[in-house]
Amino acid sequence: MAAAEDRGAVATYIPPLATIDPSRFGLCIVTADGAVHAAGDAEQAFSIQSVSKVFALTQALGKVGDTLWRRVGREPSGTPFNSIVQLEREQGIPRNPFINAGALVVADINLAGHEPRVAIGELLRFVRYLADDDAITIDEAVARAEQATGFRNVALANYMKAFGNIQHAPELTLGVYFHQCAIAMTCRQLAMAGRYLMHGGLYRPGGARVVSAQRARRINALMLTCGHYDASGDFAFRVGLPGKSGVGGGILAIAPGKASIAVWSPGLNANGNSKLGTLALERVAEATGWSVFSAA
Amino acid sequence: MAAAEDRGAVATYIPPLATIDPSRFGLCIVTADGAVHAAGDAEQAFSIQSVSKVFALTQALGKVGDTLWRRVGREPSGTPFNSIVQLEREQGIPRNPFINAGALVVADINLAGHEPRVAIGELLRFVRYLADDDAITIDEAVARAEQATGFRNVALANYMKAFGNIQHAPELTLGVYFHQCAIAMTCRQLAMAGRYLMHGGLYRPGGARVVSAQRARRINALMLTCGHYDASGDFAFRVGLPGKSGVGGGILAIAPGKASIAVWSPGLNANGNSKLGTLALERVAEATGWSVFSAA
Amino acid sequence: MAAAEDRGAVATYIPPLATIDPSRFGLCIVTADGAVHAAGDAEQAFSIQSVSKVFALTQALGKVGDTLWRRVGREPSGTPFNSIVQLEREQGIPRNPFINAGALVVADINLAGHEPRVAIGELLRFVRYLADDDAITIDEAVARAEQATGFRNVALANYMKAFGNIQHAPELTLGVYFHQCAIAMTCRQLAMAGRYLMHGGLYRPGGARVVSAQRARRINALMLTCGHYDASGDFAFRVGLPGKSGVGGGILAIAPGKASIAVWSPGLNANGNSKLGTLALERVAEATGWSVFSAA
Amino acid sequence: MAAAEDRGAVATYIPPLATIDPSRFGLCIVTADGAVHAAGDAEQAFSIQSVSKVFALTQALGKVGDTLWRRVGREPSGTPFNSIVQLEREQGIPRNPFINAGALVVADINLAGHEPRVAIGELLRFVRYLADDDAITIDEAVARAEQATGFRNVALANYMKAFGNIQHAPELTLGVYFHQCAIAMTCRQLAMAGRYLMHGGLYRPGGARVVSAQRARRINALMLTCGHYDASGDFAFRVGLPGKSGVGGGILAIAPGKASIAVWSPGLNANGNSKLGTLALERVAEATGWSVFSAA
Repeated sequence: MAAAEDRGAVATYIPPLATIDPSRFGLCIVTADGAVHAAGDAEQAFSIQSVSKVFALTQALGKVGDTLWRRVGREPSGTPFNSIVQLEREQGIPRNPFINAGALVVADINLAGHEPRVAIGELLRFVRYLADDDAITIDEAVARAEQATGFRNVALANYMKAFGNIQHAPELTLGVYFHQCAIAMTCRQLAMAGRYLMHGGLYRPGGARVVSAQRARRINALMLTCGHYDASGDFAFRVGLPGKSGVGGGILAIAPGKASIAVWSPGLNANGNSKLGTLALERVAEATGWSVFSAA
Repeated sequence: MAAAEDRGAVATYIPPLATIDPSRFGLCIVTADGAVHAAGDAEQAFSIQSVSKVFALTQALGKVGDTLWRRVGREPSGTPFNSIVQLEREQGIPRNPFINAGALVVADINLAGHEPRVAIGELLRFVRYLADDDAITIDEAVARAEQATGFRNVALANYMKAFGNIQHAPELTLGVYFHQCAIAMTCRQLAMAGRYLMHGGLYRPGGARVVSAQRARRINALMLTCGHYDASGDFAFRVGLPGKSGVGGGILAIAPGKASIAVWSPGLNANGNSKLGTLALERVAEATGWSVFSAA
Repeated sequence: MAAAEDRGAVATYIPPLATIDPSRFGLCIVTADGAVHAAGDAEQAFSIQSVSKVFALTQALGKVGDTLWRRVGREPSGTPFNSIVQLEREQGIPRNPFINAGALVVADINLAGHEPRVAIGELLRFVRYLADDDAITIDEAVARAEQATGFRNVALANYMKAFGNIQHAPELTLGVYFHQCAIAMTCRQLAMAGRYLMHGGLYRPGGARVVSAQRARRINALMLTCGHYDASGDFAFRVGLPGKSGVGGGILAIAPGKASIAVWSPGLNANGNSKLGTLALERVAEATGWSVFSAA
Repeated sequence: MAAAEDRGAVATYIPPLATIDPSRFGLCIVTADGAVHAAGDAEQAFSIQSVSKVFALTQALGKVGDTLWRRVGREPSGTPFNSIVQLEREQGIPRNPFINAGALVVADINLAGHEPRVAIGELLRFVRYLADDDAITIDEAVARAEQATGFRNVALANYMKAFGNIQHAPELTLGVYFHQCAIAMTCRQLAMAGRYLMHGGLYRPGGARVVSAQRARRINALMLTCGHYDASGDFAFRVGLPGKSGVGGGILAIAPGKASIAVWSPGLNANGNSKLGTLALERVAEATGWSVFSAA
């Protein structure tokens, strides 16, 4: 990848993320047959940040089913990840579950009247189960840093509370959200955790059902149309796979029926998505023909 | 389809479309092996309206290649098909080629310094070639009605002209646009014309190349993320196929490698897309497993 | 005022305000010669709410002078009092000091590194001095209710904090703001407190200088262009006096050189301004020729 | 005015205006007693551009009275003079008669079913009458240039036509509008024409009534809140007089009961208002105490 000199800039607004070496790069591909292909820093844990929104959405759909869509839309937002404008026009209903406002409503659903640590523990257990790896943890330093600097998220939660679309005290919902963003995973763990979206909702072929086939398709659809904020269209255009990015530099991409792919490189492009990670996925998709838009 | 009593309302702002019987329904599926499956009013011609944007975009990409993307974005708009707000914020660059503003820029590219009738003739010949049917025509009454009532489109073209993103006199570019919207096709013709998007850019398997495989994938990606205005996310969620709708009630949907599907029913839902047509495609996708998000 | 049957609806989002009898009406006019003309419920204390923004702005200008305008604009907003949209477009700089976001920045300036109760005490003393009445108090029940329900204001403060335009912890700044809104005054007290804006900045003719003549003119100008949220133009059109309204139903209006007028009636119109109060001021201005736009 | 070195940039989007010498400066003050005080280039004709909106509004109110306000608002816009965004949100109703969209509706009212040249002739006669000077003409070269380059105004007119708020063919309404902007006047003529707004609606003290006293006040109010686009608040803050600016560099300001003032200097500030003209008015208001917000 010699041509990709400019690796983009590391996210700096969350202090612990600002110190990550931008030259790190990891990739892990789990194919449908269960084979695991890892490269580079694939065993290095990083902060999954917004990639966690996929797992939190899956958890919330398990709790409340499609009634979730009364509180969150499923359209691309056309605005940056932390925009508050759309909420005013649409009366506190976030455009989709993958922008911050939508993820806050999802966190509010997952909180379900419990203590934040209960909801967070439940999500962590779910992710460990999906990845088949109990070593996955939450980075408390990152969670505290998010809490200390996340004024925009505090604004979003309180704003939706004013519209009645946050049911708990905003600080509790925010506690869940900040902790889910701070889950640390390696590329290998993340690619393993994404397998159910490759296998039509099954844990593995012939294995336990995590979600129905329809729900797996729908989560994939949301990842494709909304997974990269206001660069979702460009990611679909260039890569052609459902994917969800995080400002920690990680991306989870799914080739339905074929592969679950995790890539990590902390340098971000102007839209807040991993620059090398996106490029790597574009090349993987080109080389394998895994784009969902391919004739093959 | 007895449960689908409410067929939606016919578009009334273009007078000739307002008289169409809303109970009409046609469907045609051309599969990868070339078999044609037609049902209902599949041989009835209708105004393809915005479905023409797919063919016009293909034509314009053939003329100017990827330089087209300097003048048009490729992100979902998050706004209705004829919104002008986004243009002000983004300095006259439309969000994508499938909203009206973007299609006007595409028409401006296709005009290429010629008389409007030259550009229109060229597009009509291209569509006839794709559909392998020289009987396809432009409905002049519809074109005239669009011209007489299309004040919003006149506004959009002049607005982009003010930003320098329309190169011809706006009335000439509008002439091309209004005529391309007035192309009349049957479901059979439309499904035939969409084959190159199913076949990775080939006219037919082993046949002439219409566009490169990459370009076919990318047009499919744009149809999926942007093909249904501010209901694109919902269409991807429910149907899971690249598709482009028109206010005439037609939808072209592509299952890459598997099928080109045209459906027509003139009653529209609140977002301006065919109500029964969308439902029919949802059922076809469910029954066949053709969703691009399926594991199978 | 028999024709004004519909007195509007009392603000309900702050519970203690919801119980006020909407039929109350008070008016007090202090003329340049010091004469006090009171009518109706002019001695009944009410929650001055946003009228406090005038006194808080005066206080903040005294602290930091015209450097205040680096953090707050002075243009009408064209949006409702609690809109957050404009803040995103303009990078956390509120349009003017009389919308909630602007008043929060003013409160942040008045806080000046002290405990909230210090800043609040200082403002209360200033208002008592202006009104020459030490009986003015803060209604703690109202302050608590604002705090308990003011999620939108919490959102605004945190949102501006994210842009660096709130310097203290948002909850401290909000504490000042919620308490200043809860100041309770009678029409008589309010009209007395507004005298310095009638007298070109003097406490009384020949008395102490509260602000410079230029600053008094400028505060009057801001009240005229921005004092009634997105109905400021209409108030100027109908009444023609600088004025500032509050959702408690009070309005302070100034006829420069002629009168300071306070009116109170808790029923609000669609823009959140006192319905009868506005009508009363329109009639007073018509009868007296005090409009600043009059030739006389 | 030695300190005001930077005179701002001349408007360049209308070619004939781009060639004006930016060092020109004229001022004319007509006081209530009829005395005329002229300075600098006060006898030099310039393109009054948007200042014409005051006279066109007066004419339209004469035709349709307050029913005009069903088609145009009277609130400051919070957006630039040629913004189209607000129109979409508010369904084709312009915010006020002094932004371009509002002035187009006013022109549509003045057209009243006649040929554009009839409406233009009528407005020109009205302005000549107000200024008591038949030498006032329309600069046809400017009118043609506006027509050739005014794509944004074409967009605005067609956009409102789509909402039904333009009743004539847009090109006819635009013809009226482009010609009214091209009226050429000297500072002396403009100050004379503004006398009725100083004299409470009378042509001169004791003279014929042009408009009612209430209407004169209300036009003054609109000039103060909306006369300088998104710098109206700043103009009120600094100058404190009702005023209307044009991109030709002219400003008409009214001190009710005291003076009608015209100033001209073609260099514009960032908001499209005359830079030196605004500064001159600020100094005149300071020196004379004519601010409507003054106690004196």
